Amino acid sequence: MKKVIIKSPGTVANLVCGFDILGLALNEPNDIMELTLLDEPRVIIHNKDEFDLPTDPEKNVAGVVLLSIMEKMDNKIGFEVTIEKHIKPGSGIGSSAASAAGAAVAANHMLGNIFSTDEVVQFAMNGEKLASGVKHADNIAPCILGGVTLIRSIHPLDIITIPSPDLFVTVVHPQIEVRTSDARQILKQQVSLKDAIRQWGNIAGLVTGFMKNDLDLIGRSLEDVIIEPVRSILIPGFAEVKKNCKEAGALGGGISGSGPSVFMLSKDEGTAKAVESVMKDVYTRIGIDFNTYVTTINKTGVEIVE
Amino acid sequence: MKKVIIKSPGTVANLVCGFDILGLALNEPNDIMELTLLDEPRVIIHNKDEFDLPTDPEKNVAGVVLLSIMEKMDNKIGFEVTIEKHIKPGSGIGSSAASAAGAAVAANHMLGNIFSTDEVVQFAMNGEKLASGVKHADNIAPCILGGVTLIRSIHPLDIITIPSPDLFVTVVHPQIEVRTSDARQILKQQVSLKDAIRQWGNIAGLVTGFMKNDLDLIGRSLEDVIIEPVRSILIPGFAEVKKNCKEAGALGGGISGSGPSVFMLSKDEGTAKAVESVMKDVYTRIGIDFNTYVTTINKTGVEIVE
Repeated sequence: MKKVIIKSPGTVANLVCGFDILGLALNEPNDIMELTLLDEPRVIIHNKDEFDLPTDPEKNVAGVVLLSIMEKMDNKIGFEVTIEKHIKPGSGIGSSAASAAGAAVAANHMLGNIFSTDEVVQFAMNGEKLASGVKHADNIAPCILGGVTLIRSIHPLDIITIPSPDLFVTVVHPQIEVRTSDARQILKQQVSLKDAIRQWGNIAGLVTGFMKNDLDLIGRSLEDVIIEPVRSILIPGFAEVKKNCKEAGALGGGISGSGPSVFMLSKDEGTAKAVESVMKDVYTRIGIDFNTYVTTINKTGVEIVE
Repeated sequence: MKKVIIKSPGTVANLVCGFDILGLALNEPNDIMELTLLDEPRVIIHNKDEFDLPTDPEKNVAGVVLLSIMEKMDNKIGFEVTIEKHIKPGSGIGSSAASAAGAAVAANHMLGNIFSTDEVVQFAMNGEKLASGVKHADNIAPCILGGVTLIRSIHPLDIITIPSPDLFVTVVHPQIEVRTSDARQILKQQVSLKDAIRQWGNIAGLVTGFMKNDLDLIGRSLEDVIIEPVRSILIPGFAEVKKNCKEAGALGGGISGSGPSVFMLSKDEGTAKAVESVMKDVYTRIGIDFNTYVTTINKTGVEIVE
């Protein structure tokens, strides 16, 4: 019986100025998933965590992904999957994407990698559709490919890996709920041409900075004049966290996905830990529970463990 | 008496999706300028061309640049300049920028390069202010630095050179007048967030394509959903030229600056010449006089000839 264990990473989508197009994968946290290939068309889900996620395949992010793969295989196969979730649902660091991408990569692996990366991304996007109502690849793409990824276009799917320096990433997850639907509704559907130009100057600067390994340029380009000013009001302490983190040496950062997690990029581990420390200070003072991670950019994406 | 002869290249600003931020320098056409350093505070201008440009320094693009440098030098020096203009004013391939940038680089050279590149760009921007009313660096930056340049920000000035493949550039200049003020006035000051996102996906793709030497990606990313649909109505034959050029093998292209010139990028000279041929066909059929250039990306910028 074919079996596989995979590690599926957390991800940061909406990379500051790169709203809807740029994301990156994290080396921590990761979900662990164990999949078995069945010879009958059913999906059995076991959750080995505290999050009380649904086990009905139609209502489970990994489940709908596996169902879509089964359908493609004329329902001649099935899957049993055990999910050990470490990426907290609703944290804004790609919890649903980790389940969806992990399931898609694991299934494809057991099937002898018959599907292309683009097809695997497409399967995984069915999970995002269930989770957020939208078939987006903002987290799926970096989760599967690793590194910094550009989603140039969704229709047709056009995903490009952007080489990047080995930066450190500090994430703070304040334990508040930001509904994705709220985060989406408060966005203005019209933006001024002036702001749009400033944003695309920054995006071009950020991509160039990643590829030239120019940390100063990355820092200067980590500015979002369109989304952050609106969405950050949903995250208590955001302005203070950002200001203090930059004073502590972070290159810059912003809201992870649609929040509430906030991430910061740093050039070395010492700075990333100093950044973690000021994040902790702010949320301790405000009185909001939180988790933090000090990690690096994951360059491999979903990993086959055994 | 210090003397210098320089060659100042034409440039393409508003590189398709990179409106206001991306430009490139051309190996053809070039203006030739001869400057002499004077020991008294005056600017003498001679035009060795057919364009009847002003010789009053206050009204001449090169003149105001040289006056601004003189002022910085406490008016202890002056310049005599002879301009042989080959880049037709109003063509949309950086005619005023060539005069302004050429004057600034030549003056700095004679002064022993006492000014930084950023300062030289700032001096040259005074010429653009005179020519178009706006202190922009869209053409100045590639004209001085060569290659593909990103103007991430004007305040503060932040110019970055983007490595690019040795692409061929075909330019057609239909001999019609597009007033810069008209080209500016018809732009919508608000854009939809959806279009803005698509545009910045393309910008990130274009920059990545240039730096990865990925011609397909460059081609896919050469799409402007914001400016071109509005401005192209001022250029007769635009849609047909673009369609036919792509069919002839061009990677893509669009309006050069604010027009009326149209440019196309190609991977080799044969394609660039085939592209020129279809451009000629269109404007011959429409009955509009035109010039064409088949050239390459100039990687050096303003060049000291002797």
